[in-house]
Amino acid sequence: VYAQVLYDFAAEPGNNELSIREGETITITNQNIGGGWIEAKNSKGEVGLVPEDYIEVSNTSNGNDPWTVFDNNASGGFSNNWAAQPEGTETGKTSSNAWHSGGHGHPQAYQGPGNNSNKFKGLVPKMKMKISPKNENYAAFYSRFKTGEVGPVWAYPDYQLDCVVADPKKGSKLYGLKSYIEYQVTPTTTNKPVNHRYKHFDWLYERLLEKFGSAIPIPCLPDKQVAGRFEDEFIKMRMERLQGWMTRMCRHPVISSSEVFQLFLSYKDEKDWKMGKRKAEKDETVGVMVFSTIEPEGLPDLDLIEVEQKCEQFNRFTRAMDDGVKDLLTIGNEHWKRCTGPLPKEYQRIGKAFQNLSSVFTSSGYEGEAALTDALTAAGKTYEEIAQMVAEQPKKDLHFLMETNNEYKGLLGCFPDTVGVHKAAIEKVKEADKLVAAGKITPSDKTTMSKRASTMSYSLQAEMNHFHSNRIYDYNRVMQQYLEQQVKFYEMIAEKLRHAHSRFTTM
Amino acid sequence: VYAQVLYDFAAEPGNNELSIREGETITITNQNIGGGWIEAKNSKGEVGLVPEDYIEVSNTSNGNDPWTVFDNNASGGFSNNWAAQPEGTETGKTSSNAWHSGGHGHPQAYQGPGNNSNKFKGLVPKMKMKISPKNENYAAFYSRFKTGEVGPVWAYPDYQLDCVVADPKKGSKLYGLKSYIEYQVTPTTTNKPVNHRYKHFDWLYERLLEKFGSAIPIPCLPDKQVAGRFEDEFIKMRMERLQGWMTRMCRHPVISSSEVFQLFLSYKDEKDWKMGKRKAEKDETVGVMVFSTIEPEGLPDLDLIEVEQKCEQFNRFTRAMDDGVKDLLTIGNEHWKRCTGPLPKEYQRIGKAFQNLSSVFTSSGYEGEAALTDALTAAGKTYEEIAQMVAEQPKKDLHFLMETNNEYKGLLGCFPDTVGVHKAAIEKVKEADKLVAAGKITPSDKTTMSKRASTMSYSLQAEMNHFHSNRIYDYNRVMQQYLEQQVKFYEMIAEKLRHAHSRFTTM
Repeated sequence: VYAQVLYDFAAEPGNNELSIREGETITITNQNIGGGWIEAKNSKGEVGLVPEDYIEVSNTSNGNDPWTVFDNNASGGFSNNWAAQPEGTETGKTSSNAWHSGGHGHPQAYQGPGNNSNKFKGLVPKMKMKISPKNENYAAFYSRFKTGEVGPVWAYPDYQLDCVVADPKKGSKLYGLKSYIEYQVTPTTTNKPVNHRYKHFDWLYERLLEKFGSAIPIPCLPDKQVAGRFEDEFIKMRMERLQGWMTRMCRHPVISSSEVFQLFLSYKDEKDWKMGKRKAEKDETVGVMVFSTIEPEGLPDLDLIEVEQKCEQFNRFTRAMDDGVKDLLTIGNEHWKRCTGPLPKEYQRIGKAFQNLSSVFTSSGYEGEAALTDALTAAGKTYEEIAQMVAEQPKKDLHFLMETNNEYKGLLGCFPDTVGVHKAAIEKVKEADKLVAAGKITPSDKTTMSKRASTMSYSLQAEMNHFHSNRIYDYNRVMQQYLEQQVKFYEMIAEKLRHAHSRFTTM
Repeated sequence: VYAQVLYDFAAEPGNNELSIREGETITITNQNIGGGWIEAKNSKGEVGLVPEDYIEVSNTSNGNDPWTVFDNNASGGFSNNWAAQPEGTETGKTSSNAWHSGGHGHPQAYQGPGNNSNKFKGLVPKMKMKISPKNENYAAFYSRFKTGEVGPVWAYPDYQLDCVVADPKKGSKLYGLKSYIEYQVTPTTTNKPVNHRYKHFDWLYERLLEKFGSAIPIPCLPDKQVAGRFEDEFIKMRMERLQGWMTRMCRHPVISSSEVFQLFLSYKDEKDWKMGKRKAEKDETVGVMVFSTIEPEGLPDLDLIEVEQKCEQFNRFTRAMDDGVKDLLTIGNEHWKRCTGPLPKEYQRIGKAFQNLSSVFTSSGYEGEAALTDALTAAGKTYEEIAQMVAEQPKKDLHFLMETNNEYKGLLGCFPDTVGVHKAAIEKVKEADKLVAAGKITPSDKTTMSKRASTMSYSLQAEMNHFHSNRIYDYNRVMQQYLEQQVKFYEMIAEKLRHAHSRFTTM
């Protein structure tokens, strides 16, 4: 079997990998390696592992179009809208590309595991189901309509789950053929650590996206990056981001109490994990079906116009925030570059110039020069220290500001689709009158559709309220952290300069 | 009479000036305006004043070489070396271009008033004179050869003269035809202000250069700049620099006690000033003759090798310092640009980004947003304030560091020539043996030459010691000033950020 290389891939030394270049044709020698890897041979006869996302297996029908590989990754189907789909209506073609905004299109951005089974097609017959009672222990709405309160919110647990992602360790499998990094994940509930590789997080992400994606925006995992993934700096950064992702998932009452998430955090042993995995993969309450498990407790059905308005408001807000966040990221990036590049270089040069002048003065042969030259040297060294401080500062403050905003960029990128599910439902409800008139659906069908749209709107409102409260918490925290570090930074510079100043004397 | 335009000149509006362009031919209509101006007519028939340095009067012999205009400005002649010139020896050709290093070559840099009379040629016969007794009340050496002391120094007065240059006022002359700026100069001795225009400072500079230039480096005045000279910013800057120049002259015991300097600072009335001017212009104790007025009180004659070593040491030092100062100026200039250009722009953008995010958050419709959005807006405004502080800071600190170093650059530029006068004397003394052998000079002539070289060396040492002590004072002061302002700057930023920080709350 031949394959076409879609992207350059540089082999990690010592990991039995094979470097490949875009446009190259390789021969697949073992397709059953697993974990997103296949074994291949290049034209020179060298054999090694390559990431399967980076190549396209040749076949007669679409072998010449490199984009078709992404079709394989199309795991979506949520626009087969449960709420908006009256019985018997044909489901349209689905497009999941928008799901991970900016994600698809290059394998270094996040992608699903390339699961090709059209499991969502099996959902269509289930559209006929009634709103089922809560079948897991989350997903209960309850009203908090006291004056000044925010409207529908998720039922939050009394205890806030959290976990610690730590202690990355290199492991190997396939009799040492493949290396990987394993992270220790310790939930605050059991305090018992479990081990997970990136691909397990990836599996969890896929399950959550499949199951909750219609109602809850599931932010992408940190980049799947293949090259350089054994470098300490990268491992540290990935761990930090996996921690951020896990904390965000833990904070969500619906996700954190779900069976699959609980499994991930606290499986008892390998057998428990494997069984749980199999069960989760067979879960059929996925896609829009998730709304069937949501019970807006004691809340009245919403009017269509009200649903629409809420939808529009959220849409506008997330779009505006997305712009604001991207703007801040752009500026932050430029500031980072300046703070780590030209600015410290300049302070260093100022420092060197003072020290240089000091050593020229030392050569004067004039008596009584020492006090000045010592002071000048000290001032010069101070500016060199400041240069280093300036260069290291972004890691202490800007870094967290950037990470938080990057996280929000990812999260906001999921909103258009979540909102889109609701919009599609509204459109279908709007068409319902015509369908009733044409005798295609019954008036009772129309009532059911309205009820479902109302449930979806409550869900969206609860999700937005969850988003807002988290956002207020996160931005307060990150701004505090940023400004605290900035204050420390400027205070330390002032302190250093005060000391340098004290060494000069006026005669 | 026709003239060729050498440099572009933009007329100051309302001052009867005429804009001219390089390469243009103009007709001179009045050559007797004075003050460096002539009246001319361009090809369009427009008549107005133009600076005479900017044009070259056409004549048959050298009308096509624009550089010959600078020969007119050659006011030097100090290499007609008094000490090294035995009786009857022909004086060589003089080159004064090096006198103002970087000064000649463009009229916007400082130039003398274009005095064309070869008054220094008259000096040659006077070389026969004996060392005359001190004929003014300065210039006495006295020995301070206590252990650890610095060697020969000028006799410093008990009272340190200083003056204040202030209150620039616009005046006019030629029945309102020409405007000028007049500065008030108040010496601390009389406390009685006198008025001087830039051209008077220029006249003083010329007198000091003529009289003391062989022994004492006389720093150039601030640029003669013609265009934009009535703009407030320029007037302020020129005043500041004239103040710096005057303070430096006041600090020099030989210069400050000279008749011409005293005249400039404390002439009684116009008549007094005009008579004093005439007297100063007729002064014949100029050039190398100044050494004849210097008496190394009780100091033994120096050995030639010792003189040479001192000379070399000073030369090395001033060259090294010149490099160091220029280096600092280059870096300072770049830093200035960054601090007033891209850096505040970036802080402003950070500020805007925070405020933008704040206004997006305000639009969320979520309750309990106000505390965060107020804090974010305040943080944004703080960064805008910081942007402004950053942009204004160089004027508060870097400015003085740059001005002081610019002053020293000018001063150091004069040293090679001052040292050159001594080197030439040494060379001549070295040749003296041959001349004695050839019967061209007497052994007694040779002794006189050695004695004179010794006096010059003492003078140079005194001047270097003066330079060193002033340098130590100036650099201590300017570094203190710089660092003090820097500390204030960073403290104020920290304070502002601390306040911004306090507005965020963790829930």
